[in-house]
Amino acid sequence: MVLRVGVVGGGQLARMMIPAAVNLGIEIRVLAEAEGMSAALAATAVGDYRDLATVAAFAAEVDVVTFDHEHVPQPVLRALVDAGVRVHPGPEALQFAQDKLRMRERLQALGMPQPEWAAVSDEAQLQAFIDANGGRAVVKTPRGGYDGKGVRLVSSAAEASDWFAAVADDPAGSALLVEELVDFRRELAQLVARRPGGEVRHWPVVETVQKGGVCAEVFAPAPNATARLVEVAGEIGDAIVSGLGVTGVMAVELFQTVDDRLLVNELAMRPHNSGHWTQDGSVTSQFEQHLRAVLDLPLGDTAAGAPWTVMMNILGGPLEGTLDARYVAAMQEVPHAKIHNYGKDPRPGRKVGHVNVVGENLDDVTFDARAAAAYFEG
Amino acid sequence: MVLRVGVVGGGQLARMMIPAAVNLGIEIRVLAEAEGMSAALAATAVGDYRDLATVAAFAAEVDVVTFDHEHVPQPVLRALVDAGVRVHPGPEALQFAQDKLRMRERLQALGMPQPEWAAVSDEAQLQAFIDANGGRAVVKTPRGGYDGKGVRLVSSAAEASDWFAAVADDPAGSALLVEELVDFRRELAQLVARRPGGEVRHWPVVETVQKGGVCAEVFAPAPNATARLVEVAGEIGDAIVSGLGVTGVMAVELFQTVDDRLLVNELAMRPHNSGHWTQDGSVTSQFEQHLRAVLDLPLGDTAAGAPWTVMMNILGGPLEGTLDARYVAAMQEVPHAKIHNYGKDPRPGRKVGHVNVVGENLDDVTFDARAAAAYFEG
Repeated sequence: MVLRVGVVGGGQLARMMIPAAVNLGIEIRVLAEAEGMSAALAATAVGDYRDLATVAAFAAEVDVVTFDHEHVPQPVLRALVDAGVRVHPGPEALQFAQDKLRMRERLQALGMPQPEWAAVSDEAQLQAFIDANGGRAVVKTPRGGYDGKGVRLVSSAAEASDWFAAVADDPAGSALLVEELVDFRRELAQLVARRPGGEVRHWPVVETVQKGGVCAEVFAPAPNATARLVEVAGEIGDAIVSGLGVTGVMAVELFQTVDDRLLVNELAMRPHNSGHWTQDGSVTSQFEQHLRAVLDLPLGDTAAGAPWTVMMNILGGPLEGTLDARYVAAMQEVPHAKIHNYGKDPRPGRKVGHVNVVGENLDDVTFDARAAAAYFEG
Repeated sequence: MVLRVGVVGGGQLARMMIPAAVNLGIEIRVLAEAEGMSAALAATAVGDYRDLATVAAFAAEVDVVTFDHEHVPQPVLRALVDAGVRVHPGPEALQFAQDKLRMRERLQALGMPQPEWAAVSDEAQLQAFIDANGGRAVVKTPRGGYDGKGVRLVSSAAEASDWFAAVADDPAGSALLVEELVDFRRELAQLVARRPGGEVRHWPVVETVQKGGVCAEVFAPAPNATARLVEVAGEIGDAIVSGLGVTGVMAVELFQTVDDRLLVNELAMRPHNSGHWTQDGSVTSQFEQHLRAVLDLPLGDTAAGAPWTVMMNILGGPLEGTLDARYVAAMQEVPHAKIHNYGKDPRPGRKVGHVNVVGENLDDVTFDARAAAAYFEG
């Protein structure tokens, strides 16, 4: 018996499942959007993930279908399930990653701690929310961004008038999501996995640092975290992954507020940038765990393998090729840095790799990770 | 720039280079002996490694050629080098892995500690060696085994008469190798890597335990090893890898004698079973290091990432398929065991995978590794 996993989407998350599949003796096949993508080594098909016939033909050759991203449309997902395909995570769970209003409603029903939020259908409702929440608010488009971003900080309802017009024209649209601007001390992320049989395991909560709206650094486990904070974050992860019926790996992005509450910011129902540290810093990487989970195999140990791991992203700005000389310089300078290169053509701001450094002392690990990552700065 | 490594041979050593290549952003291509081999995921060609035209065509599409095994004939290797192909390890080094008499001669010239040995051309010479070394000796065929084994313990020269007949008929043959039967306390292995530029790094020396002539368990680092023993083993590895001009990873199998000398038993000029622990127990795995070395990239840190790692081989005897239910049972029983499944059809005695367990306490790690491996016993 050889187990075959089919991954829809050929990006770096699919790519990073390949080593785990090779180790476990699992056959991995990828449906890529185009030739030459990050996961090209395992790409057995190229096609449009929005086309049912394309995805169904791909699914027919594997034991379970999973994803590099959350964008496969609900009708495609549901048709696969109706045809008897094992799809993990399934459409019921994925709708909460695809629609932020549904996510907020469902998390509220589950009693999860969230920022103040509302569904607003017009400028008057939005203005009332802004007025009730200190004169500012964060407006989000529930399903993807109408301007490619989908998140906007506003201080008056008029600043979202174009989005109200867009949502009115959107056949699937009904309202915008508005959330309070949270006064947070820092951002955390809770990674967790669940298999169809119900087993759940979570990793230690980590601190994530964004620069220019992009995840830049991850500190694992989160420094200066009380045992109570670690426990609560894990409980939130467990409750959401089970409450939403998620199968596979899920990341919960959290705010730690200035008064030390944890509030759920976003969900990702797949391996996530905040979990890349697990490749070198945890007994079981998120990519191995995702494969184990979607195949309903026993989950692996999620303990940290060393006291500290620091992950830094590599953005493609100044790089001249997929194995630019800067990689060689970083390998030379920090022999214990673990380089992860996605094999993607560099473009400014594009995530093309990351560096993990593991060790005993947080200051040393941070210093070394930044020393390696500094070679990739503009 | 994308670096492309071509691996001749499609076995599990080539397979286990794939995860390292994926991480580093290196393109890996494999020339496999047949369809469906262990490294099939990266197999871009299938053909006979003894055929120059086949290997040369494969080599033309990569930046450097390396190997899953040591069996590519010298004329093929030398023709590649003459044609300008980068071959690592090169033919000059590989001859010492292909011919045990040449190895003994060269190690003697380098002043390496070895068992007593001699080249013997007839039974009289062999009997004289046996008589001078306590009435027993180990006879070896220098180039592969005439009976598929190539190593025989004898107490009289007549027991090797068939091999003398075979070596006389062998156009490349001249003599047999005979070695004293070493009175050893245990067997060790020293793993080391060297890049063409000359940089050398060695891992901590490990203890290897054979069962039925096959490597069964590896304890890393070697328990109860004095600092002096660790230092001497490392020096031996460094001296051999440099003295023989080896590029890539090399394993030196050592005897620790009852009077605590270290003697060189065998060499392997490739990643080796005694180094599989590095996949989960060292900052840099032997497979990543091999790719870095043959590409002349800076070598990675060879420190152990945790106090202890125990590796146990999985033999194919009782298994019913490449992902037999026993794997699932082992994953369930020991969630921190790292399973490595080579995707090979099981046959009795065939190495089809291994398990690594990493931890703080040697007794616990050994217990857990054996608990996981026990699922695979007959």
